[in-house]
Amino acid sequence: MTERKRVAILGSTGSIGTQALDVIAAHPERFEVVGLAAGRKEDLLREQARRFGAHVATTIADGPEGLLRVAVSSEPDILLAATDGSVAFEAVFAAVERGTDVAVANKELIVAAGALLVESAQRSGAKLLPVDSEHSAIFQCLIGEERESIAAIVLTASGGPFWRKSREAMEHADVEAALAHPTWRMGTKNTIDSATMMNKGLEVIEASRLFGFPGELIRIVVHPQSIAHGFVLFTDGSVKSQLAAPDMRLPIGYALAYPNRLSPVGRPPPAEPTGSPLSEDDVLQILGAKQGEVALRYDFEAPDPLRFPCVALAYEALAAGGTVPAVLSAANEVAVDAFVEGRIAFGKISEVIERTMERTRLGEASLDGVRLADREARINAQAIVKGTQRSSNH
Amino acid sequence: MTERKRVAILGSTGSIGTQALDVIAAHPERFEVVGLAAGRKEDLLREQARRFGAHVATTIADGPEGLLRVAVSSEPDILLAATDGSVAFEAVFAAVERGTDVAVANKELIVAAGALLVESAQRSGAKLLPVDSEHSAIFQCLIGEERESIAAIVLTASGGPFWRKSREAMEHADVEAALAHPTWRMGTKNTIDSATMMNKGLEVIEASRLFGFPGELIRIVVHPQSIAHGFVLFTDGSVKSQLAAPDMRLPIGYALAYPNRLSPVGRPPPAEPTGSPLSEDDVLQILGAKQGEVALRYDFEAPDPLRFPCVALAYEALAAGGTVPAVLSAANEVAVDAFVEGRIAFGKISEVIERTMERTRLGEASLDGVRLADREARINAQAIVKGTQRSSNH
Repeated sequence: MTERKRVAILGSTGSIGTQALDVIAAHPERFEVVGLAAGRKEDLLREQARRFGAHVATTIADGPEGLLRVAVSSEPDILLAATDGSVAFEAVFAAVERGTDVAVANKELIVAAGALLVESAQRSGAKLLPVDSEHSAIFQCLIGEERESIAAIVLTASGGPFWRKSREAMEHADVEAALAHPTWRMGTKNTIDSATMMNKGLEVIEASRLFGFPGELIRIVVHPQSIAHGFVLFTDGSVKSQLAAPDMRLPIGYALAYPNRLSPVGRPPPAEPTGSPLSEDDVLQILGAKQGEVALRYDFEAPDPLRFPCVALAYEALAAGGTVPAVLSAANEVAVDAFVEGRIAFGKISEVIERTMERTRLGEASLDGVRLADREARINAQAIVKGTQRSSNH
Repeated sequence: MTERKRVAILGSTGSIGTQALDVIAAHPERFEVVGLAAGRKEDLLREQARRFGAHVATTIADGPEGLLRVAVSSEPDILLAATDGSVAFEAVFAAVERGTDVAVANKELIVAAGALLVESAQRSGAKLLPVDSEHSAIFQCLIGEERESIAAIVLTASGGPFWRKSREAMEHADVEAALAHPTWRMGTKNTIDSATMMNKGLEVIEASRLFGFPGELIRIVVHPQSIAHGFVLFTDGSVKSQLAAPDMRLPIGYALAYPNRLSPVGRPPPAEPTGSPLSEDDVLQILGAKQGEVALRYDFEAPDPLRFPCVALAYEALAAGGTVPAVLSAANEVAVDAFVEGRIAFGKISEVIERTMERTRLGEASLDGVRLADREARINAQAIVKGTQRSSNH
């Protein structure tokens, strides 16, 4: 038996954190939990620490030392960065600087500080493993391929709850409608990002950071069935795609076990490599067919820039570089909060972001510069939200 | 500049051979043609030899020494085995024994003698590179993955011209209908094999030989659009697929250039890795959409064993092993010829093969054994065809 991998988790009580612990619980021979940190749900955190025997467990309220103890002092082989926002940036950077592999589930981290993180990882030899299903797909398709053979990267999008809605209907869509995601079960923020398709915009920035391609070579294709998670286009006209059921435990497990692959959680592997038979119906189900169906259909469509202006804003932020992606991400958080709280219409989200990007100064491309830009963007975005409320109350 | 790869081609005037020379002509900086052999079209062979400066060019009628000169004495880095039937078996084995990489486009070679060929390649270190689009797809999806992570292999099938036809209509389908392939342009034999779906059966045997999986873990899924050429299913529930326009020059170029990738023949690469923009419509076209279309659909269906009994015969031959796949392949050739010549009905093809498999003795699993089985199977199949003709003339 090989050594168990030592895993530390920042954000263990959130959606990604709990699913990661599901994966770990299903593979006790592979993983050992050495550290846990969570922002809320203290009871759950304590229970997790007991159950998995984690020696270090801390709440984010305990301050930055606690996070550093989990990310560094617990000596993990791999750190799962699954907190929201920027609270754990220092801890993650400290781990990467020591050469610890990081499974990155924190979008803000990669969007706002990805260039710095990748540089740091290149210096220390730490691996950055994507947890997002789309980036996991691209990562898997790039394995064993030469960099100069890659022509482009394509991320798939479900299209979100509004893919078939008119622009007019979207303008004043309510929160309930925006939270009705057709394929993925996610938190509120992610689901609203899916409705605006800002999630894809942020993912384009992430992909650019993680894989080193400019925005021009990263494209989005809408695939409502959410089975094919990404494509890599090669110079010779060949394309590779990774497909899987829309279950976050698969990319989480992939990142934690890399370079090995696990057997899936909660169901037997599709077939034993030793030779047990596999029916054609099994295959169709693995490719996404519902139980008993013998036919399966995938659709692919070009996205619609008019109804989803957030996507273009993200490309713009990526092209501008520096602290602009951090501004985009912070402004988006403020705008989404304002929408969820009923303070602005759905159609105003992109406007708040765009105006915040215009108003916020370009900062220094350092971790401090990113923090400063984030703070300034939030102040500006709040002011713009208030202005928007006032004008719509007139 | 790197050294040019020395390429020799057995079967240079056939469909695969001429397309390989198209690929080579488009990449003169990459390839040098050192030897050519062809069975027919002597004029074309001479013209090819002149055009590409091949020092060794021979017709198959010149005898086995000529083929050996092309495959061995011309000292190729890679040999493209693209003759039909068994005429070039010795020459290919001689090349593999010397450690020369072989791009295998000769189905009979892999079906009848694949186990021997793979053993020989393992001894010498020669690489066997698939040319079939389906096997190229699997090969590409396996790159960089651990053997123990692979759960199963799935080959896609277009379904051929009869995919939507009833069993009754197929029974007495005429040659013209059987030659009307919806997506691929191929020779007569391959197109009829597509109508019976024996092509998929033979490909299952090929895949088993090339990738070392038992038949139970190799499955077929019908995908009428012929864009996704194959899937690899991993133990963790993840799936990889390779997709490409149905153009044989892509897998041929892949096999010749491996481990590098070429730019495609006859059109610019999808985008320069240096940063030229790529539109979403470009992406959809690369994924298979027709010019101007902004939506694309892939269908996947389970195959129908009742209407396509040849598939089960191939699985049976693979499970039986030894010389049985050689018998299957030889009997299929005789049956297809008899159908094309109007001597038996379409519906009788599988019957001739099945009865030939029953009647032909198990032989020794050596190259001589395979040759003997091939000869005996042809005699038996011819006799069965004659019997079938007599009974249907009654």
